[in-house]
Amino acid sequence: MNSRLEVWAPDGLREIAPGDDLVALLAELLRDDPPVDGDILVLTSKVVSKAEGRVVSADDREQAITDETVRVVATREHASGVTRIVENRLGLVMAAAGVDASNTPEGTVLLLPLDPDASARRIRAGLSAAFGVRVGVVITDTAGRPWRQGVTDIAIGAAGLVVLDDLRGQVDSFGRPLVMTQAAVADEIASAGELVKGKAEGRPLAVVRGLGHLVTDEDGPGARVLVRLGDEDMFQQGSAEAYSQGWKDALRDQ
Amino acid sequence: MNSRLEVWAPDGLREIAPGDDLVALLAELLRDDPPVDGDILVLTSKVVSKAEGRVVSADDREQAITDETVRVVATREHASGVTRIVENRLGLVMAAAGVDASNTPEGTVLLLPLDPDASARRIRAGLSAAFGVRVGVVITDTAGRPWRQGVTDIAIGAAGLVVLDDLRGQVDSFGRPLVMTQAAVADEIASAGELVKGKAEGRPLAVVRGLGHLVTDEDGPGARVLVRLGDEDMFQQGSAEAYSQGWKDALRDQ
Repeated sequence: MNSRLEVWAPDGLREIAPGDDLVALLAELLRDDPPVDGDILVLTSKVVSKAEGRVVSADDREQAITDETVRVVATREHASGVTRIVENRLGLVMAAAGVDASNTPEGTVLLLPLDPDASARRIRAGLSAAFGVRVGVVITDTAGRPWRQGVTDIAIGAAGLVVLDDLRGQVDSFGRPLVMTQAAVADEIASAGELVKGKAEGRPLAVVRGLGHLVTDEDGPGARVLVRLGDEDMFQQGSAEAYSQGWKDALRDQ
Repeated sequence: MNSRLEVWAPDGLREIAPGDDLVALLAELLRDDPPVDGDILVLTSKVVSKAEGRVVSADDREQAITDETVRVVATREHASGVTRIVENRLGLVMAAAGVDASNTPEGTVLLLPLDPDASARRIRAGLSAAFGVRVGVVITDTAGRPWRQGVTDIAIGAAGLVVLDDLRGQVDSFGRPLVMTQAAVADEIASAGELVKGKAEGRPLAVVRGLGHLVTDEDGPGARVLVRLGDEDMFQQGSAEAYSQGWKDALRDQ
Protein backbone atom coordinates (compact mmCIF):
# COMPACT_ATOMS: atom_id res chain seq x y z
CA MET A 1 0.00 0.00 0.00
CA ASN A 2 1.27 3.43 -0.95
CA SER A 3 2.00 5.44 2.17
CA ARG A 4 2.30 8.91 0.66
CA LEU A 5 -0.60 10.95 -0.55
CA GLU A 6 -0.70 14.30 -2.33
CA VAL A 7 -3.90 16.30 -2.63
CA TRP A 8 -4.26 19.64 -4.40
CA ALA A 9 -7.01 21.81 -5.85
CA PRO A 10 -6.18 23.57 -9.11
CA ASP A 11 -7.42 27.15 -9.43
CA GLY A 12 -9.28 28.62 -12.33
CA LEU A 13 -12.46 26.68 -13.16
CA ARG A 14 -14.97 29.28 -14.29
CA GLU A 15 -18.58 29.33 -13.09
CA ILE A 16 -20.39 26.40 -14.67
CA ALA A 17 -23.65 26.96 -16.58
CA PRO A 18 -26.27 24.49 -17.81
CA GLY A 19 -25.11 22.74 -20.94
CA ASP A 20 -21.40 23.41 -20.35
CA ASP A 21 -19.07 20.62 -21.47
CA LEU A 22 -17.76 19.82 -17.99
CA VAL A 23 -15.24 17.24 -19.21
CA ALA A 24 -13.69 19.75 -21.61
CA LEU A 25 -13.52 22.43 -18.91
CA LEU A 26 -11.96 20.01 -16.41
CA ALA A 27 -9.45 18.83 -19.01
CA GLU A 28 -8.50 22.48 -19.61
CA LEU A 29 -8.18 23.04 -15.84
CA LEU A 30 -5.86 20.01 -15.54
CA ARG A 31 -3.77 20.71 -18.65
CA ASP A 32 -0.85 22.46 -16.87
CA ASP A 33 -0.48 19.67 -14.31
CA PRO A 34 -2.02 16.63 -16.01
CA PRO A 35 -3.23 13.60 -14.07
CA VAL A 36 -1.09 10.48 -14.04
CA ASP A 37 -2.24 6.86 -13.98
CA GLY A 38 -3.88 6.10 -10.64
CA ASP A 39 -4.87 9.65 -9.75
CA ILE A 40 -8.30 10.16 -8.22
CA LEU A 41 -10.27 13.29 -9.17
CA VAL A 42 -12.61 14.56 -6.45
CA LEU A 43 -15.30 16.85 -7.79
CA THR A 44 -17.94 18.82 -5.90
CA SER A 45 -21.41 17.74 -7.05
CA LYS A 46 -22.48 21.39 -7.44
CA VAL A 47 -20.56 21.81 -10.67
CA VAL A 48 -22.00 18.56 -12.02
CA SER A 49 -25.52 19.70 -11.12
CA LYS A 50 -24.93 23.06 -12.80
CA ALA A 51 -23.60 21.49 -16.00
CA GLU A 52 -26.58 19.12 -16.02
CA GLY A 53 -28.99 22.03 -15.53
CA ARG A 54 -30.25 20.77 -12.16
CA VAL A 55 -31.19 24.33 -11.13
CA VAL A 56 -34.63 25.44 -9.98
CA SER A 57 -36.05 28.73 -8.71
CA ALA A 58 -35.50 29.36 -5.01
CA ASP A 59 -39.24 29.99 -4.74
CA ASP A 60 -39.71 26.30 -5.52
CA ARG A 61 -37.19 25.13 -2.88
CA GLU A 62 -39.70 23.46 -0.54
CA GLN A 63 -41.40 21.74 -3.48
CA ALA A 64 -38.02 20.65 -4.81
CA ILE A 65 -37.15 19.08 -1.45
CA THR A 66 -40.51 17.28 -1.50
CA ASP A 67 -39.90 16.07 -5.05
CA GLU A 68 -36.43 14.77 -4.16
CA THR A 69 -37.75 13.01 -1.05
CA VAL A 70 -38.42 9.27 -1.01
CA ARG A 71 -39.02 9.03 2.74
CA VAL A 72 -39.03 11.50 5.64
CA VAL A 73 -36.67 10.31 8.39
CA ALA A 74 -37.03 13.17 10.87
CA THR A 75 -38.23 16.75 11.04
CA ARG A 76 -37.32 19.45 13.52
CA GLU A 77 -38.88 22.89 13.86
CA HIS A 78 -36.61 25.80 14.68
CA ALA A 79 -36.54 29.59 14.47
CA SER A 80 -35.89 29.72 10.73
CA GLY A 81 -38.36 27.01 9.75
CA VAL A 82 -38.44 23.23 9.64
CA THR A 83 -35.43 21.03 9.00
CA ARG A 84 -36.37 17.92 7.05
CA ILE A 85 -33.97 14.98 7.27
CA VAL A 86 -35.04 12.71 4.43
CA GLU A 87 -33.97 9.83 2.26
CA ASN A 88 -33.66 11.16 -1.27
CA ARG A 89 -33.83 9.50 -4.70
CA LEU A 90 -30.21 8.41 -4.34
CA GLY A 91 -30.71 6.68 -1.00
CA LEU A 92 -28.83 9.48 0.74
CA VAL A 93 -30.21 10.58 4.10
CA MET A 94 -29.65 14.33 4.21
CA ALA A 95 -31.09 17.57 5.45
CA ALA A 96 -33.29 19.15 2.74
CA ALA A 97 -32.73 16.07 0.53
CA GLY A 98 -29.45 17.62 -0.60
CA VAL A 99 -31.18 20.62 -2.19
CA ASP A 100 -28.70 23.44 -1.72
CA ALA A 101 -28.70 27.22 -2.03
CA SER A 102 -24.99 28.01 -1.56
CA ASN A 103 -22.74 28.70 -4.53
CA THR A 104 -25.79 28.95 -6.77
CA PRO A 105 -26.93 31.95 -8.83
CA GLU A 106 -29.16 34.37 -6.88
CA GLY A 107 -32.75 33.21 -6.70
CA THR A 108 -31.96 29.59 -7.53
CA VAL A 109 -31.30 26.34 -5.69
CA LEU A 110 -29.39 23.30 -6.91
CA LEU A 111 -30.63 19.74 -6.99
CA LEU A 112 -28.16 16.86 -6.79
CA PRO A 113 -27.18 15.28 -10.12
CA LEU A 114 -29.81 12.86 -11.42
CA ASP A 115 -27.37 9.93 -11.31
CA PRO A 116 -24.00 10.90 -9.77
CA ASP A 117 -22.49 7.46 -10.46
CA ALA A 118 -23.35 7.83 -14.16
CA SER A 119 -21.92 11.36 -14.10
CA ALA A 120 -18.73 10.02 -12.51
CA ARG A 121 -18.47 7.34 -15.23
CA ARG A 122 -18.88 9.95 -17.98
CA ILE A 123 -16.28 12.27 -16.46
CA ARG A 124 -13.88 9.38 -15.90
CA ALA A 125 -14.22 8.19 -19.48
CA GLY A 126 -13.74 11.70 -20.83
CA LEU A 127 -10.70 12.58 -18.72
CA SER A 128 -9.09 9.15 -19.15
CA ALA A 129 -9.38 9.66 -22.90
CA ALA A 130 -8.19 13.27 -22.75
CA PHE A 131 -5.01 12.39 -20.87
CA GLY A 132 -4.53 8.76 -21.88
CA VAL A 133 -4.33 7.61 -18.26
CA ARG A 134 -6.52 5.59 -15.91
CA VAL A 135 -8.10 7.80 -13.24
CA GLY A 136 -10.79 7.37 -10.60
CA VAL A 137 -13.56 9.95 -10.12
CA VAL A 138 -15.41 10.78 -6.91
CA ILE A 139 -18.34 13.20 -6.89
CA THR A 140 -18.94 14.71 -3.46
CA ASP A 141 -21.57 16.44 -1.42
CA THR A 142 -21.48 17.92 2.06
CA ALA A 143 -23.57 16.23 4.75
CA GLY A 144 -24.19 16.33 8.47
CA ARG A 145 -24.01 13.24 10.69
CA PRO A 146 -25.97 12.10 13.73
CA TRP A 147 -24.08 12.60 17.02
CA ARG A 148 -21.32 14.71 15.44
CA GLN A 149 -21.05 18.47 15.10
CA GLY A 150 -20.11 19.93 11.77
CA VAL A 151 -20.36 18.64 8.24
CA THR A 152 -18.00 16.50 6.18
CA ASP A 153 -17.83 15.68 2.50
CA ILE A 154 -18.98 12.23 1.38
CA ALA A 155 -18.96 10.37 -1.92
CA ILE A 156 -22.32 10.47 -3.73
CA GLY A 157 -20.91 9.34 -7.06
CA ALA A 158 -17.86 7.27 -7.99
CA ALA A 159 -16.27 5.50 -10.94
CA GLY A 160 -13.02 3.64 -11.43
CA LEU A 161 -12.00 3.12 -7.84
CA VAL A 162 -12.59 0.89 -4.85
CA VAL A 163 -15.41 2.53 -2.90
CA LEU A 164 -15.60 0.09 0.00
CA ASP A 165 -12.16 -1.34 0.78
CA ASP A 166 -12.90 -4.87 1.89
CA LEU A 167 -10.32 -5.89 4.46
CA ARG A 168 -11.76 -9.38 4.95
CA GLY A 169 -8.96 -11.87 4.79
CA GLN A 170 -6.44 -9.30 5.97
CA VAL A 171 -5.04 -9.81 9.44
CA ASP A 172 -3.94 -7.39 12.12
CA SER A 173 -0.37 -7.14 13.38
CA PHE A 174 -1.10 -10.07 15.70
CA GLY A 175 -2.21 -12.24 12.79
CA ARG A 176 -5.90 -12.17 13.67
CA PRO A 177 -8.63 -11.32 11.13
CA LEU A 178 -9.60 -7.64 11.13
CA VAL A 179 -12.91 -6.92 12.81
CA MET A 180 -13.76 -3.73 10.91
CA THR A 181 -14.02 -5.40 7.54
CA GLN A 182 -15.01 -2.60 5.20
CA ALA A 183 -13.49 0.87 5.07
CA ALA A 184 -15.54 3.54 3.26
CA VAL A 185 -12.47 4.82 1.43
CA ALA A 186 -14.50 6.83 -1.12
CA ASP A 187 -15.95 8.87 1.75
CA GLU A 188 -12.48 9.32 3.24
CA ILE A 189 -11.19 10.44 -0.17
CA ALA A 190 -14.09 12.92 -0.40
CA SER A 191 -13.11 14.30 3.01
CA ALA A 192 -9.43 14.54 2.07
CA GLY A 193 -10.42 16.45 -1.07
CA GLU A 194 -12.58 18.86 0.89
CA LEU A 195 -9.59 19.89 3.00
CA VAL A 196 -8.00 21.49 -0.04
CA LYS A 197 -11.13 22.46 -2.03
CA GLY A 198 -12.74 24.27 0.87
CA LYS A 199 -16.23 25.67 0.50
CA ALA A 200 -15.72 29.33 -0.29
CA GLU A 201 -12.76 29.32 -2.65
CA GLY A 202 -14.38 28.26 -5.88
CA ARG A 203 -12.06 25.30 -6.33
CA PRO A 204 -14.49 22.42 -6.90
CA LEU A 205 -11.87 19.87 -8.04
CA ALA A 206 -9.19 18.14 -6.01
CA VAL A 207 -6.58 15.77 -7.41
CA VAL A 208 -5.59 12.91 -5.08
CA ARG A 209 -2.29 11.24 -5.99
CA GLY A 210 -0.93 8.18 -4.20
CA LEU A 211 -3.95 5.89 -3.99
CA GLY A 212 -3.37 4.11 -7.28
CA HIS A 213 -3.90 0.79 -5.50
CA LEU A 214 -7.58 1.78 -5.18
CA VAL A 215 -8.02 2.71 -8.85
CA THR A 216 -9.60 0.02 -11.00
CA ASP A 217 -9.86 -0.83 -14.70
CA GLU A 218 -13.63 -1.16 -14.43
CA ASP A 219 -15.99 1.63 -13.41
CA GLY A 220 -17.13 -0.52 -10.50
CA PRO A 221 -20.35 -0.33 -8.46
CA GLY A 222 -20.22 3.39 -7.75
CA ALA A 223 -21.03 5.27 -4.56
CA ARG A 224 -24.46 3.67 -4.45
CA VAL A 225 -22.95 0.75 -2.54
CA LEU A 226 -22.20 3.14 0.32
CA VAL A 227 -25.92 3.45 1.01
CA ARG A 228 -27.09 1.34 3.96
CA LEU A 229 -30.86 1.37 4.41
CA GLY A 230 -33.66 -1.13 4.99
CA ASP A 231 -33.23 -3.93 7.52
CA GLU A 232 -29.64 -2.95 8.27
CA ASP A 233 -30.68 0.60 9.17
CA MET A 234 -31.24 0.99 12.92
CA PHE A 235 -32.12 4.69 12.47
CA GLN A 236 -34.91 4.57 9.91
CA GLN A 237 -36.77 7.27 11.83
CA GLY A 238 -35.80 10.03 14.23
CA SER A 239 -36.34 9.05 17.87
CA ALA A 240 -39.28 11.46 18.28
CA GLU A 241 -40.96 10.18 15.11
CA ALA A 242 -40.51 6.53 16.05
CA TYR A 243 -41.71 7.18 19.60
CA SER A 244 -44.93 8.87 18.51
CA GLN A 245 -45.52 6.19 15.88
CA GLY A 246 -45.28 3.56 18.61
CA TRP A 247 -47.62 5.57 20.79
CA LYS A 248 -50.19 5.94 17.97
CA ASP A 249 -50.03 2.26 17.05
CA ALA A 250 -50.49 1.18 20.66
CA LEU A 251 -53.62 3.31 21.04
CA ARG A 252 -54.99 2.22 17.66
CA ASP A 253 -54.75 -1.39 18.81
CA GLN A 254 -56.78 -0.69 21.96
CA MET B 1 -5.93 28.66 2.26
CA ASN B 2 -3.20 26.24 1.30
CA SER B 3 -4.32 24.17 -1.64
CA ARG B 4 -1.72 21.39 -1.49
CA LEU B 5 -1.68 18.64 1.08
CA GLU B 6 0.83 15.89 1.73
CA VAL B 7 0.02 12.91 3.92
CA TRP B 8 2.38 10.07 4.75
CA ALA B 9 2.75 7.32 7.33
CA PRO B 10 6.28 6.61 8.55
CA ASP B 11 7.18 2.96 9.03
CA GLY B 12 8.82 1.43 12.04
CA LEU B 13 6.94 2.14 15.26
CA ARG B 14 7.32 -0.96 17.38
CA GLU B 15 4.43 -2.61 19.23
CA ILE B 16 3.49 -0.34 22.14
CA ALA B 17 3.28 -1.75 25.69
CA PRO B 18 1.77 -0.28 28.86
CA GLY B 19 4.07 2.34 30.33
CA ASP B 20 5.96 3.02 27.11
CA ASP B 21 7.04 6.63 26.62
CA LEU B 22 4.91 7.22 23.52
CA VAL B 23 6.25 10.74 22.93
CA ALA B 24 9.84 9.49 22.91
CA LEU B 25 8.95 6.63 20.54
CA LEU B 26 7.07 8.98 18.18
CA ALA B 27 9.94 11.47 18.26
CA GLU B 28 12.29 8.63 17.30
CA LEU B 29 9.90 7.55 14.51
CA LEU B 30 9.85 11.11 13.14
CA ARG B 31 13.58 11.84 13.50
CA ASP B 32 14.55 11.04 9.89
CA ASP B 33 11.82 13.26 8.44
CA PRO B 34 11.05 15.73 11.22
CA PRO B 35 7.79 17.67 11.39
CA VAL B 36 7.79 21.32 10.34
CA ASP B 37 5.74 24.15 11.79
CA GLY B 38 2.07 23.63 10.96
CA ASP B 39 2.20 19.87 10.48
CA ILE B 40 -0.66 17.83 11.92
CA LEU B 41 0.12 14.42 13.41
CA VAL B 42 -2.71 11.90 13.14
CA LEU B 43 -2.35 9.04 15.60
CA THR B 44 -4.48 5.89 15.97
CA SER B 45 -5.98 5.78 19.47
CA LYS B 46 -4.92 2.14 19.84
CA VAL B 47 -1.30 3.06 20.46
CA VAL B 48 -2.35 5.70 22.99
CA SER B 49 -4.55 3.17 24.78
CA LYS B 50 -1.71 0.65 24.85
CA ALA B 51 0.80 3.15 26.23
CA GLU B 52 -1.76 4.16 28.86
CA GLY B 53 -2.38 0.53 29.79
CA ARG B 54 -6.04 0.57 28.75
CA VAL B 55 -5.96 -3.20 28.14
CA VAL B 56 -8.33 -5.74 29.71
CA SER B 57 -8.82 -9.47 29.33
CA ALA B 58 -11.00 -10.49 26.40
CA ASP B 59 -13.06 -12.54 28.86
CA ASP B 60 -14.15 -9.23 30.37
CA ARG B 61 -15.11 -7.68 27.01
CA GLU B 62 -18.88 -7.53 27.63
CA GLN B 63 -18.32 -6.10 31.10
CA ALA B 64 -15.85 -3.58 29.69
CA ILE B 65 -18.43 -2.42 27.15
CA THR B 66 -20.97 -2.06 29.95
CA ASP B 67 -18.47 -0.10 32.05
CA GLU B 68 -17.67 2.25 29.15
CA THR B 69 -21.37 2.80 28.41
CA VAL B 70 -23.19 5.93 29.54
CA ARG B 71 -26.38 5.25 27.59
CA VAL B 72 -27.58 2.50 25.25
CA VAL B 73 -28.74 3.99 21.95
CA ALA B 74 -29.69 0.82 20.07
CA THR B 75 -29.13 -2.92 20.20
CA ARG B 76 -29.42 -5.48 17.45
CA GLU B 77 -29.25 -9.25 17.75
CA HIS B 78 -27.48 -11.20 15.04
CA ALA B 79 -25.86 -14.56 14.43
CA SER B 80 -22.68 -13.79 16.37
CA GLY B 81 -24.36 -12.09 19.31
CA VAL B 82 -25.76 -8.65 20.10
CA THR B 83 -24.44 -5.38 18.69
CA ARG B 84 -24.71 -2.58 21.23
CA ILE B 85 -24.63 0.96 19.84
CA VAL B 86 -24.00 3.12 22.89
CA GLU B 87 -22.89 6.54 24.04
CA ASN B 88 -19.61 6.09 25.87
CA ARG B 89 -17.79 8.12 28.52
CA LEU B 90 -16.45 10.42 25.85
CA GLY B 91 -19.86 11.22 24.35
CA LEU B 92 -19.02 9.08 21.31
CA VAL B 93 -21.85 6.95 19.95
CA MET B 94 -20.19 3.75 18.78
CA ALA B 95 -20.69 0.03 18.46
CA ALA B 96 -19.34 -1.76 21.56
CA ALA B 97 -18.56 1.65 23.14
CA GLY B 98 -15.30 1.67 21.18
CA VAL B 99 -13.97 -1.41 22.97
CA ASP B 100 -11.83 -3.12 20.32
CA ALA B 101 -10.20 -6.49 19.83
CA SER B 102 -8.17 -5.90 16.68
CA ASN B 103 -4.44 -5.15 16.82
CA THR B 104 -4.40 -6.13 20.50
CA PRO B 105 -2.40 -8.92 22.14
CA GLU B 106 -4.16 -12.30 22.06
CA GLY B 107 -6.76 -12.64 24.81
CA THR B 108 -7.06 -8.91 25.40
CA VAL B 109 -9.28 -6.04 24.29
CA LEU B 110 -8.46 -2.33 24.23
CA LEU B 111 -10.44 0.45 25.85
CA LEU B 112 -10.30 3.97 24.42
CA PRO B 113 -7.90 6.37 26.14
CA LEU B 114 -9.32 7.82 29.36
CA ASP B 115 -9.14 11.39 28.02
CA PRO B 116 -8.03 11.50 24.37
CA ASP B 117 -7.97 15.31 24.32
CA ALA B 118 -5.59 15.32 27.29
CA SER B 119 -3.49 12.64 25.57
CA ALA B 120 -3.38 14.79 22.44
CA ARG B 121 -2.25 17.80 24.47
CA ARG B 122 0.54 15.77 26.11
CA ILE B 123 1.74 14.37 22.79
CA ARG B 124 1.57 17.80 21.17
CA ALA B 125 3.59 19.39 23.97
CA GLY B 126 6.18 16.63 23.87
CA LEU B 127 6.66 16.61 20.10
CA SER B 128 6.57 20.41 19.80
CA ALA B 129 9.37 20.51 22.38
CA ALA B 130 11.31 17.66 20.78
CA PHE B 131 11.36 19.33 17.34
CA GLY B 132 10.97 22.99 18.29
CA VAL B 133 8.00 23.44 16.00
CA ARG B 134 4.28 24.03 16.43
CA VAL B 135 2.26 20.95 15.46
CA GLY B 136 -1.35 19.85 15.79
CA VAL B 137 -2.28 16.37 17.06
CA VAL B 138 -5.37 14.34 16.18
CA ILE B 139 -6.11 11.02 17.91
CA THR B 140 -8.40 8.82 15.84
CA ASP B 141 -10.71 5.88 16.14
CA THR B 142 -12.68 3.95 13.54
CA ALA B 143 -16.46 4.20 13.60
CA GLY B 144 -19.53 3.23 11.63
CA ARG B 145 -22.21 5.69 10.61
CA PRO B 146 -25.98 5.45 10.28
CA TRP B 147 -27.15 5.11 6.66
CA ARG B 148 -23.65 4.54 5.26
CA GLN B 149 -21.83 1.28 4.61
CA GLY B 150 -18.29 0.90 5.83
CA VAL B 151 -16.32 2.60 8.55
CA THR B 152 -14.29 5.82 8.53
CA ASP B 153 -11.79 7.30 10.96
CA ILE B 154 -12.93 10.19 13.16
CA ALA B 155 -11.18 12.48 15.63
CA ILE B 156 -11.70 11.45 19.26
CA GLY B 157 -8.88 13.60 20.60
CA ALA B 158 -7.27 16.79 19.34
CA ALA B 159 -4.88 19.53 20.39
CA GLY B 160 -3.41 22.54 18.64
CA LEU B 161 -5.68 22.76 15.64
CA VAL B 162 -9.05 24.04 14.53
CA VAL B 163 -11.46 21.11 15.04
CA LEU B 164 -14.63 22.73 13.72
CA ASP B 165 -13.83 25.20 10.95
CA ASP B 166 -16.41 27.93 11.41
CA LEU B 167 -17.24 29.37 8.00
CA ARG B 168 -19.74 31.88 9.36
CA GLY B 169 -19.00 35.26 7.85
CA GLN B 170 -17.46 33.65 4.77
CA VAL B 171 -19.41 34.02 1.56
CA ASP B 172 -19.85 31.77 -1.43
CA SER B 173 -18.67 32.66 -4.93
CA PHE B 174 -21.90 34.64 -5.38
CA GLY B 175 -21.21 36.71 -2.29
CA ARG B 176 -23.89 35.08 -0.16
CA PRO B 177 -23.22 33.72 3.37
CA LEU B 178 -22.38 30.03 3.42
CA VAL B 179 -25.18 27.79 4.63
CA MET B 180 -23.04 24.94 5.90
CA THR B 181 -21.35 26.96 8.61
CA GLN B 182 -19.12 24.48 10.39
CA ALA B 183 -16.88 21.91 8.74
CA ALA B 184 -15.68 19.05 10.95
CA VAL B 185 -12.13 19.38 9.66
CA ALA B 186 -10.62 17.24 12.44
CA ASP B 187 -12.78 14.32 11.28
CA GLU B 188 -11.75 14.97 7.67
CA ILE B 189 -8.09 15.05 8.75
CA ALA B 190 -8.61 11.74 10.59
CA SER B 191 -10.05 10.24 7.39
CA ALA B 192 -7.20 11.59 5.26
CA GLY B 193 -4.72 10.04 7.69
CA GLU B 194 -6.47 6.68 7.57
CA LEU B 195 -5.96 6.51 3.80
CA VAL B 196 -2.20 6.19 4.35
CA LYS B 197 -2.16 4.49 7.77
CA GLY B 198 -4.47 1.69 6.74
CA LYS B 199 -5.64 -0.85 9.28
CA ALA B 200 -3.39 -3.83 8.77
CA GLU B 201 0.02 -2.28 8.14
CA GLY B 202 1.10 -1.34 11.62
CA ARG B 203 1.56 2.33 10.74
CA PRO B 204 -0.44 4.13 13.43
CA LEU B 205 0.90 7.63 12.71
CA ALA B 206 0.25 9.85 9.71
CA VAL B 207 1.84 13.24 9.11
CA VAL B 208 -0.40 15.80 7.37
CA ARG B 209 1.48 18.73 5.83
CA GLY B 210 -0.23 21.69 4.21
CA LEU B 211 -2.95 22.60 6.72
CA GLY B 212 -0.88 25.04 8.75
CA HIS B 213 -3.75 27.53 8.58
CA LEU B 214 -5.67 25.17 10.89
CA VAL B 215 -2.86 24.82 13.45
CA THR B 216 -3.18 27.06 16.50
CA ASP B 217 -0.92 28.41 19.24
CA GLU B 218 -3.36 27.21 21.90
CA ASP B 219 -4.36 23.60 22.49
CA GLY B 220 -7.96 24.61 21.81
CA PRO B 221 -11.20 22.85 22.82
CA GLY B 222 -10.24 19.38 21.61
CA ALA B 223 -12.34 16.80 19.79
CA ARG B 224 -14.94 16.94 22.53
CA VAL B 225 -16.62 19.82 20.68
CA LEU B 226 -17.39 17.42 17.83
CA VAL B 227 -19.87 15.60 20.07
CA ARG B 228 -23.51 16.53 19.39
CA LEU B 229 -25.93 15.01 21.85
CA GLY B 230 -28.86 16.13 23.99
CA ASP B 231 -31.57 18.34 22.51
CA GLU B 232 -29.73 18.70 19.22
CA ASP B 233 -29.64 14.92 18.76
CA MET B 234 -32.57 13.69 16.67
CA PHE B 235 -31.32 10.10 16.94
CA GLN B 236 -31.06 9.59 20.70
CA GLN B 237 -32.50 6.08 20.31
CA GLY B 238 -32.66 3.54 17.55
CA SER B 239 -36.02 3.56 15.74
CA ALA B 240 -37.06 0.20 17.20
CA GLU B 241 -36.16 1.28 20.73
CA ALA B 242 -37.99 4.60 20.43
CA TYR B 243 -41.02 2.93 18.85
CA SER B 244 -41.41 0.36 21.62
CA GLN B 245 -40.84 3.04 24.27
CA GLY B 246 -43.70 5.04 22.75
CA TRP B 247 -45.86 1.93 22.68
CA LYS B 248 -45.10 1.11 26.33
CA ASP B 249 -45.74 4.65 27.49
CA ALA B 250 -49.05 4.83 25.63
CA LEU B 251 -50.30 1.64 27.30
CA ARG B 252 -49.00 2.70 30.70
CA ASP B 253 -51.08 5.88 30.41
CA GLN B 254 -54.28 3.94 29.67
